[in-house]
Amino acid sequence: MSGPQTPEPALGIQGDAPTGARDEDAADGIQHSHRMLSFSDALLSIIATVMILPVTHTEISPEQFDKSIQKLLATRIAVYLMTFLIVTVAWAAHTRLFQVVGKIDDTLALLNLACMMTITFLPFTFSLMVTFPEVPLGIFLFCMCVITIGAVQALIVVYAFHFPHLLNPQIESSTHRALYRQHILGIVLRGPALCFVAAGFSLFFYPLLPFLPRSCSGWHLLPASQPPSGCLEFCVGCGLLECGNRVRDRGPQEPPAHSMEFFTFDLHEPLSKERVEAFSDGVYAIVATLLILDICEDNVPDPRDVKEKFHGSLVAALSVYGPHFLAYFGSFATVGLLWFAHHSLFLHIRKATQSMGLLNTLSLAFVGGLPLAYQQTSAFVRQPHDELESVRVSCAIIFLASIFQFAIWTTALLHEGETLQPSARFGGREHAFMFAKLALYPCASLLAFASTCFLSRFSTAIFHLMQIAVPFAFLLLRLLVRLGLALLCAMRGLAQPATQAEEDAHAPLLPAAC
Amino acid sequence: MSGPQTPEPALGIQGDAPTGARDEDAADGIQHSHRMLSFSDALLSIIATVMILPVTHTEISPEQFDKSIQKLLATRIAVYLMTFLIVTVAWAAHTRLFQVVGKIDDTLALLNLACMMTITFLPFTFSLMVTFPEVPLGIFLFCMCVITIGAVQALIVVYAFHFPHLLNPQIESSTHRALYRQHILGIVLRGPALCFVAAGFSLFFYPLLPFLPRSCSGWHLLPASQPPSGCLEFCVGCGLLECGNRVRDRGPQEPPAHSMEFFTFDLHEPLSKERVEAFSDGVYAIVATLLILDICEDNVPDPRDVKEKFHGSLVAALSVYGPHFLAYFGSFATVGLLWFAHHSLFLHIRKATQSMGLLNTLSLAFVGGLPLAYQQTSAFVRQPHDELESVRVSCAIIFLASIFQFAIWTTALLHEGETLQPSARFGGREHAFMFAKLALYPCASLLAFASTCFLSRFSTAIFHLMQIAVPFAFLLLRLLVRLGLALLCAMRGLAQPATQAEEDAHAPLLPAAC
Repeated sequence: MSGPQTPEPALGIQGDAPTGARDEDAADGIQHSHRMLSFSDALLSIIATVMILPVTHTEISPEQFDKSIQKLLATRIAVYLMTFLIVTVAWAAHTRLFQVVGKIDDTLALLNLACMMTITFLPFTFSLMVTFPEVPLGIFLFCMCVITIGAVQALIVVYAFHFPHLLNPQIESSTHRALYRQHILGIVLRGPALCFVAAGFSLFFYPLLPFLPRSCSGWHLLPASQPPSGCLEFCVGCGLLECGNRVRDRGPQEPPAHSMEFFTFDLHEPLSKERVEAFSDGVYAIVATLLILDICEDNVPDPRDVKEKFHGSLVAALSVYGPHFLAYFGSFATVGLLWFAHHSLFLHIRKATQSMGLLNTLSLAFVGGLPLAYQQTSAFVRQPHDELESVRVSCAIIFLASIFQFAIWTTALLHEGETLQPSARFGGREHAFMFAKLALYPCASLLAFASTCFLSRFSTAIFHLMQIAVPFAFLLLRLLVRLGLALLCAMRGLAQPATQAEEDAHAPLLPAAC
Repeated sequence: MSGPQTPEPALGIQGDAPTGARDEDAADGIQHSHRMLSFSDALLSIIATVMILPVTHTEISPEQFDKSIQKLLATRIAVYLMTFLIVTVAWAAHTRLFQVVGKIDDTLALLNLACMMTITFLPFTFSLMVTFPEVPLGIFLFCMCVITIGAVQALIVVYAFHFPHLLNPQIESSTHRALYRQHILGIVLRGPALCFVAAGFSLFFYPLLPFLPRSCSGWHLLPASQPPSGCLEFCVGCGLLECGNRVRDRGPQEPPAHSMEFFTFDLHEPLSKERVEAFSDGVYAIVATLLILDICEDNVPDPRDVKEKFHGSLVAALSVYGPHFLAYFGSFATVGLLWFAHHSLFLHIRKATQSMGLLNTLSLAFVGGLPLAYQQTSAFVRQPHDELESVRVSCAIIFLASIFQFAIWTTALLHEGETLQPSARFGGREHAFMFAKLALYPCASLLAFASTCFLSRFSTAIFHLMQIAVPFAFLLLRLLVRLGLALLCAMRGLAQPATQAEEDAHAPLLPAAC
């Protein structure tokens, strides 16, 4: 998305002709930003999912699954979801920024590294803020992070406008460049400015908070070991405010851009499809391997234990970890297949609108919860009732992750001319197949959920059956869809043989069997 | 690297003209493999670095740093390095395979996921094999993994040759396609076949092993708690054999390919530069964030502890973790800057030869050790002697990681016409700058190492000074190099003013100051 190459004035005699403009750029220390952006996407997707680790590592012994553990788990899940959203917003801001800055040089690469480093502290500071709601330090640190990120981004903007050949060619050639600079700087700095106020507020006026109407329940007097839900709400509210604020920040870029006639960014396409794909790939990759990280670390049995507890039998020692392996298989298969559905979907998408991006983020956030769900199913393997519950939770998470994928597709269909490749539109050859592909997981998880209600005894069996069946279903899908369509056509052909020719004209992309 | 798009026969009427061949492919269920390969690279780079986790999480209390812990640590480091190499070999095989298979469809995508899932078990089974050298199960499981990977890859080859439009266009249009199929299948299956023999051997003949000359020391009688170094050697030897075997397996692809005149793969370029970059990016990204994963998980203090131990002072509680944060900053900065050097280097590289690929792998393996080194510096913060030692270890790891990067550059210079962009060759404008960039970290780490020898009291201070100084050095580097070159030119100009014009003709890319 770095735009067409602008030829730089040749300063020296080149040894080789065919390398052309690219080498010329590299020789000037100016580089295309593609690889730096991939690296940033990889970093950010890891950071976005990092807070699922405290959730999955919450120790739940089946005997002690009481209210306090549930509360702790709920808090951690909320922290995970919020940090995921916050990091995604930071990622979106980063994407926006590097749609303005088309090329990089060494200084920009180093500034970008500094920006990444600060972003990696967002989850920690946010978690601190939620865990210690009564201490202003948490909010202060979080705000400092946001301010630093904003300052570094502002530096990047100033630097890029100082060397205009680094800018997107459309802005570079614009006569309103100075105006753009002010406008973009304003957007980049508005969020941090708000945080600056919040940080000051947290340091100086925090003791006054209990007297404000919002917090008159006096929650700061409660024992610190149990963060009261009111303060959690407050923090989540803070986060959302910041979140929404930054989302809104990105919004206003649009009208002035349209009012300047030389700047033809299509801002209905807020994020480049490549970067959405790269970020999603990163999240899927790290989530798919989260459980193997644990297995490699913890589940190689200790030789002494094997000697003492299992009389030297490694098979017996490993069979204790059986449920972990099963959980890993299940989670990898599910995450892999959800990636597969995502991959198939984005293959037919031309551009990702803002609402599609949001739905994608939500889908990814639930995908991040999958290891948790599968770990739960392995934790309760000996307690039928709890196990049933955790299988249901797993089904619910899979359902949510896949239904948001389905929603991306539905949203894309609303503006299909803009967003979809012709073959995936209504009546296109791939339309029915894509529908079936995306509907498979929601249906399977709903089915599994329903089955657990009726056949409560066989819940684990059903769940594992589902895990094994779905990959094969994907393989058979094309066949099934063709068969279904052929059947449908045959039935319609029997009912209205007269309109057959007309239908063929309208839907020429249906399979040949029809 | 999927080759030029081959137009598929149009089966239906397309709504839009400009989407052209790509949509046509997508509509047939045939997809370009780019995104799937990025996803695989991300997965494999995470898997390659996973075994550093048991190393970093080895609990070392400064009081107990005795022989047994050292031995455990050494074993784990050996396991890490070996699994890194094994996974890299699997990645190289995967890259080779998808240089033959240019496009994918749904079945291939699912087969690839199955292949990935099996590869994720390599580190665990290898670790099991090393931890329980006397139990054949470990070797058996490892061999099963390799066999499964080979079988899935063979399936991919058979499937792709059955639908030739999925193949690389050069093979697709070749008249010797059947020969290729046999040849490639032979290569893919040779490794697993060897493993099959090894697995059989491990199950049936393992009890006889002590009587073989190789293992006559009777190490299987030693207590299982201390894996004797002999067996470690054996396992590592096994791994290396397998490793070398697969590397050799990839080698013979060359002569028959050259003997068939229609197949013009340049096999001196063994791996596509894009995939080398993607894999390296993945490793750098996961290594840079490894420490923040730990920080986010473990270092948010427990509210109850803060209340009881620190009298409610969050600052005091956090200051306990101070060294961890310092370690994180240091490791992120170092890994980030090594990525930066790698990025700058590969910007000027046209293609990566086999030896450059190997050096890159070695460099990455040491980069993976950086979190360990930095964690060590934070673990011994109160024991001056041990701290000094761990600072030295850190310096050594940084030196090795950066010197291998430097070696990539040196190797590239040996065949500069083939491998480098003109501006980075001898006499090119960027040559001196690139040299300085890549020499910075080896010099800095050597300097730090030397300083710890002379100024043993100030080691931590020196180390952290180095961490802070290096990013600024990178920023100043361009300036310094220009100054240095100008000085050099001025001196030469004073010495031999007559040859100035001639030199200008030979080195036209030197800075204007010269």
